Amino acid sequence: MEIQNSQLEKFKELHREAIKFTSLDPLQRGGILSKEARKILDEWADGYSVCDYCGGSLDRIKNPPIEEFVHEILPKFLGTDIARLTNGAREGKFLIMHAIGREDDYVVMDQNAHYSSYVAAERARLKVKFVPNSGEPEYKINADDYAKVIEEVKNETGNFPALALLTYPDGSYGNLPDAKAVGKICNEYKVPFLLNGAYSVGRMEINASDFNADFIVGSGHKSMAASGPIGVLGAGKAYEEILFRKSEKYKIKEIEQLGCTARGLPVITLMASFPHVYERVKHYDEEVKKARYFSEKMGNLGINQLGEKPHEHDLMFFESQKLFEISQKHKRGRFFLYDELKKRGIIGIKPGLTKNFKLSTYLLSEEEIKKIVDAFGEIVNLNL
Amino acid sequence: MEIQNSQLEKFKELHREAIKFTSLDPLQRGGILSKEARKILDEWADGYSVCDYCGGSLDRIKNPPIEEFVHEILPKFLGTDIARLTNGAREGKFLIMHAIGREDDYVVMDQNAHYSSYVAAERARLKVKFVPNSGEPEYKINADDYAKVIEEVKNETGNFPALALLTYPDGSYGNLPDAKAVGKICNEYKVPFLLNGAYSVGRMEINASDFNADFIVGSGHKSMAASGPIGVLGAGKAYEEILFRKSEKYKIKEIEQLGCTARGLPVITLMASFPHVYERVKHYDEEVKKARYFSEKMGNLGINQLGEKPHEHDLMFFESQKLFEISQKHKRGRFFLYDELKKRGIIGIKPGLTKNFKLSTYLLSEEEIKKIVDAFGEIVNLNL
Repeated sequence: MEIQNSQLEKFKELHREAIKFTSLDPLQRGGILSKEARKILDEWADGYSVCDYCGGSLDRIKNPPIEEFVHEILPKFLGTDIARLTNGAREGKFLIMHAIGREDDYVVMDQNAHYSSYVAAERARLKVKFVPNSGEPEYKINADDYAKVIEEVKNETGNFPALALLTYPDGSYGNLPDAKAVGKICNEYKVPFLLNGAYSVGRMEINASDFNADFIVGSGHKSMAASGPIGVLGAGKAYEEILFRKSEKYKIKEIEQLGCTARGLPVITLMASFPHVYERVKHYDEEVKKARYFSEKMGNLGINQLGEKPHEHDLMFFESQKLFEISQKHKRGRFFLYDELKKRGIIGIKPGLTKNFKLSTYLLSEEEIKKIVDAFGEIVNLNL
Repeated sequence: MEIQNSQLEKFKELHREAIKFTSLDPLQRGGILSKEARKILDEWADGYSVCDYCGGSLDRIKNPPIEEFVHEILPKFLGTDIARLTNGAREGKFLIMHAIGREDDYVVMDQNAHYSSYVAAERARLKVKFVPNSGEPEYKINADDYAKVIEEVKNETGNFPALALLTYPDGSYGNLPDAKAVGKICNEYKVPFLLNGAYSVGRMEINASDFNADFIVGSGHKSMAASGPIGVLGAGKAYEEILFRKSEKYKIKEIEQLGCTARGLPVITLMASFPHVYERVKHYDEEVKKARYFSEKMGNLGINQLGEKPHEHDLMFFESQKLFEISQKHKRGRFFLYDELKKRGIIGIKPGLTKNFKLSTYLLSEEEIKKIVDAFGEIVNLNL
């Protein structure tokens, strides 16, 4: 069918307004490119650019050095025997669930799990049972509850769950549960254990072997300064044949990867940013310090951080009766907070939220943190 | 585990040698970015850049205008009722197979199908039966054979296949089979029909409704001047609920898409290049003319094009006894052709191939075509 030229015009000038603002969006703070990645965009942006010298397996390409990155560096970084690239953390979770689960098997996961963990289980035709959090104000996951829920599944179905998943940290509260204890329990029950590190891998030092995790997934665009979509997956050697079984007809093609995954700029930016990422994870204590400072200052304004306190992560959830009350009287209603922040050069809190919202202070400078605290201070004291 | 700084150094300077050469790689010729896409790379390259104003569904984002692109423009372009973005053509094929097939169902596909069609079926735990090609020299797919193979599946299993797939054109010979006739047969048997347009969507005008195709997939990085990985999927309205069923718990999230797919630069470059792509498909006859000219000149050198003749596509397969014989005597053996072409500024034929190889002349200028023909002429006449 004919498409009018007038409808196409807008696609010729797709500019990103948001780039001029300071963003607090937890989704985005860890995905800002390193300068090393940014400077080579133009060279590698064409379609299948990384496939110039491909012999048929993405993870075996030597130029650019994807093979070394995937098979030497990533396993060290993740603390696993083997690693692969995926199209994202969610695609990694689905891959694992699909490969090790059979229809109607159970996955046990924390109640704070990202929606995509649940949806990945649905796609893999698995059932989900949640390990509940502790509710307000901290929403903590208690490791021992994994044993209870694993037992429940066993009692109800006669089988142990196919997988246990823990979100470390979760994307709502930024809580860091006791992954080591969960790993120990899973090991005792011989339930394979998957750590979702979409908000930790690339931000903080994290080593799957410390937690006895059989699998770990991370997100390039969320936390590894890479252009999306890309993720990483680490696993124990024992699972190599199960996760990365080869095609019967095409002997070098991995079935669960559909042959190849991150074929293009995402893998180049992931690799180009890696030296920067490897360095930054060593300084995560500074990010925690900043987050705690920010949490305290917000608390002084009557905007209270929920989730674990003292907090151990840059992703924080806030609650404010005060901002909610202002929204009740403000002519822009519940959109006032978004508007007022934007006026002050700040975005990243979802439009319409006032009473509860999450944000991240990751890699913000001290001046930026001060600017944001000041902005909230002015907004809280708006004279209506 | 500690990673040595010396091992990280190389990742700080990832330059693309191949960019200086004229590439004949069929994988890459259609994925070279338009100038409109190239100029906005820097603005959109950060991680989850397109999610600045996301309300929870990638395909409903209004700024940038993804919603309009996916729900208005793509269906018109593909000739389908509905459309979505995927992480690539292969991911689209897997999505369809996984959603409509049940374990051990059959997929019928042409023998020229891309390996990823087969691997997608394996991943979806479906069985494959091939519709054979005609063998040397044309390797044609005969539409009527779809009826035979569909009947075979019915006779052997008691059920009709879950899906029939046709590759249009295939990625080995660049043959364009009679998709309309295959569509008619599939419709008569009520077997859902998927057209793999990875090498057609974005290169030539193609409309799924002309072929009675229930589904069509295309590749952004292969043929739509987009940065990878990204694909498009079109389908008939009747399949919307099956393919894009929503999560039970997260009501706006599509299960088979794991919520979101091409979250980042790939969708921006796909959209930014679209006006250019929409224009270029109207001039595909010029590409066919170029391909035929090239095929003829190569034939004069004793390098013969196999596959359909006269050819209707820019992707061509060649056979040359002569180049093979030279490789038998050359000190670089079977790598001589790669070396000799590279010396002349040309890459894209797999290192080590001499007797059989494929290439594409897509969007090459007349001078480039002449340069390539001359290069082959010199190489064929090498004095050893």
